[in-house]
Amino acid sequence: METVVIAGVGLIGGSFGLALRRAGFRGRIIGVSSPPTIQTATGRGAIDEGAPLAEAVAQADVVLLAQPISIIMRVIPEVAAHLKPGALVTDAGSTKQAIVEEAERHFTPGAFLGGHPMAGKAERGVAVAEASLFEGRPWILTPVRREDEESERARWLESWITAIGARLMVLDPAQHDRVVAAASHLPQLLSSVLAAFLDGAPESALARAAAGPGLHDMTRLALSDAGLWRDICATNQEEIRRLLREYAARLTGLAGRFGPEELDSLFHAANRFASQLRKSRT
Amino acid sequence: METVVIAGVGLIGGSFGLALRRAGFRGRIIGVSSPPTIQTATGRGAIDEGAPLAEAVAQADVVLLAQPISIIMRVIPEVAAHLKPGALVTDAGSTKQAIVEEAERHFTPGAFLGGHPMAGKAERGVAVAEASLFEGRPWILTPVRREDEESERARWLESWITAIGARLMVLDPAQHDRVVAAASHLPQLLSSVLAAFLDGAPESALARAAAGPGLHDMTRLALSDAGLWRDICATNQEEIRRLLREYAARLTGLAGRFGPEELDSLFHAANRFASQLRKSRT
Repeated sequence: METVVIAGVGLIGGSFGLALRRAGFRGRIIGVSSPPTIQTATGRGAIDEGAPLAEAVAQADVVLLAQPISIIMRVIPEVAAHLKPGALVTDAGSTKQAIVEEAERHFTPGAFLGGHPMAGKAERGVAVAEASLFEGRPWILTPVRREDEESERARWLESWITAIGARLMVLDPAQHDRVVAAASHLPQLLSSVLAAFLDGAPESALARAAAGPGLHDMTRLALSDAGLWRDICATNQEEIRRLLREYAARLTGLAGRFGPEELDSLFHAANRFASQLRKSRT
Repeated sequence: METVVIAGVGLIGGSFGLALRRAGFRGRIIGVSSPPTIQTATGRGAIDEGAPLAEAVAQADVVLLAQPISIIMRVIPEVAAHLKPGALVTDAGSTKQAIVEEAERHFTPGAFLGGHPMAGKAERGVAVAEASLFEGRPWILTPVRREDEESERARWLESWITAIGARLMVLDPAQHDRVVAAASHLPQLLSSVLAAFLDGAPESALARAAAGPGLHDMTRLALSDAGLWRDICATNQEEIRRLLREYAARLTGLAGRFGPEELDSLFHAANRFASQLRKSRT
C-alpha cells in the first residue's frame, strides 16, 4: 500500500485527496498544513492524518506539493533531504520552469516530476474542495527527461491522474510556461486590467448598472487572488510581458484600422478559435 | 386596447412579444418580418399576426424597431411617414446617437424615444426567444428632450418595460454610447482580439488543450455575430477606438512595470470593480 503526502491541503490538495479516495485509493494520505486545516481536511476525509513536513515526507511513496509557488520553491530542499529512495515528488504549481529548475538542484534525477492540474474555482481552501474538481480538466506533467515520466512511480501517478478523471498532458517545462501564458496568464491579466480600467473610468458606476452578461464573463477572473498571481507573474515574467505587448499591439492596430473588412476578419478568426475551443472540451 | 408593432421579430423582438403577453398585455401584437419568421413567431405566441411595415405602422400605438442597427436606420423614414399622430416609436439598437439623429430628422418631437434592452444570448432568432429574456437586465431609454419620456405613450412603454422585469435606466444618447462602449463594446472586442490572437499563435492547439474555465469565460463573446458588431462598431467608432487605445496603453504600461506592487494595485482595483459589479446585480 502506498503512502501519499499532500503538502498544502487547500482547494487543490484537498480535492486531490478526496478524488483519490473516490477513485478507490486505499493507501494512507498524510496532510501537511496548519492544525485547523488538518482538522477540517481530516473531517472531510481528504486526508487520514496530519504530520510535520519532514516526518510526513520520510514516510511518503508519492508527495504532492500543492502550496503556492513561492512556498513550493522554499520547501524543495527540505523535501529532498527527507525523501526515501525510490519515492516521487510532484507539484501543482501554475508555472513550471522556476520550480523544475529549483527541483533539479536538489533532487536526484527521476525523484521529481513537475505537474500542473488546470483546475480551480473562485473560493479557496479545503472547505470547498471537491472530489470532482479535476474531472475533464487537463493535468499537465512536465518531465525534464523522458525517463522521468516512465519510472514505475511516475506511471503510478499518471494512472491515478487518469483515474480521478483528469486529462493527462505532457509538455516540457518551457513549453508549459509558454502555453499557459497564452491559455491562462494572458486571459487573467486582460480581465484584471479591464476591471481595473473600468474601476477608474468616469462612467464606472453607469457601466456597472448597464452591464450585461458579457461584462460578467469578462471580469470573473478579475476576482482572482492577488497573492497567487504575484507568484505566477514573478515566475513567468518574460513570456507574460511579451504576450501583453503583442496583444496591446493588436488592439492598437485594430483601433487604427477599424473598417468592416478588418472587423469581419477579426470576428472570423475569433469565432473559429472560440468554436474549436468548445469542441475540444467535449 | 393598444396595438404594438414589432418590426424585426428575432430574439429581441420575439422575446418582447412573449414577455408582454406573459406580463398581461391584452392588446394586439403585429409583427413585421419575413413570412417564415412570422409563421414561427405566431406559432410561439410572440405576435398575433404579420403585416408589411407600412400597413402595420399605420395601425400602431407603439412600434418597437428590433432589427439590426443598419436596418433601423434605413426604415426610419418609412415608419415616420406612416405613423399615426400620438403614436410612439422606440427601438432596440445597441448604439443610440446615430439612430436618434436619424430619427430626429424624420419624426415629430416626442414621436421617437430611443431604447436599448441590454439582453441577448449566443443563439439568434425568434425560435430561441424567451419571455424571461429581459428579467433583471437593464433597458436603457435615451430621450433627447425631457418631455420625450414624460408623454403618456412614453409612460405606457416604461410601465411595460418594468412589468416584463427589466431595470429601466435613462441616459442621453451620447452618454449611452459612452457607457456601452465601456460596459459592452470594449469587453466584446477584447474577447474577439484574444480569440483571434490565440487562433494565430504558434501554441494555439496546445492552448486549447490546456484551457481551463477562465479561457472559456474570456472567449464566450468571441462567438458573437460579425454582422451585428459591424453595425455597432460603425455607429460608435470614436468612443470604441479611444477605449481600445487607452486599454492598450494600460497593458503596455503593465508590461513595462510588472513588479509585485503594480500587480497588487492592479488586482486590488480589479477585485473592487468585479465585486461591486456582482453586488449591483442582486
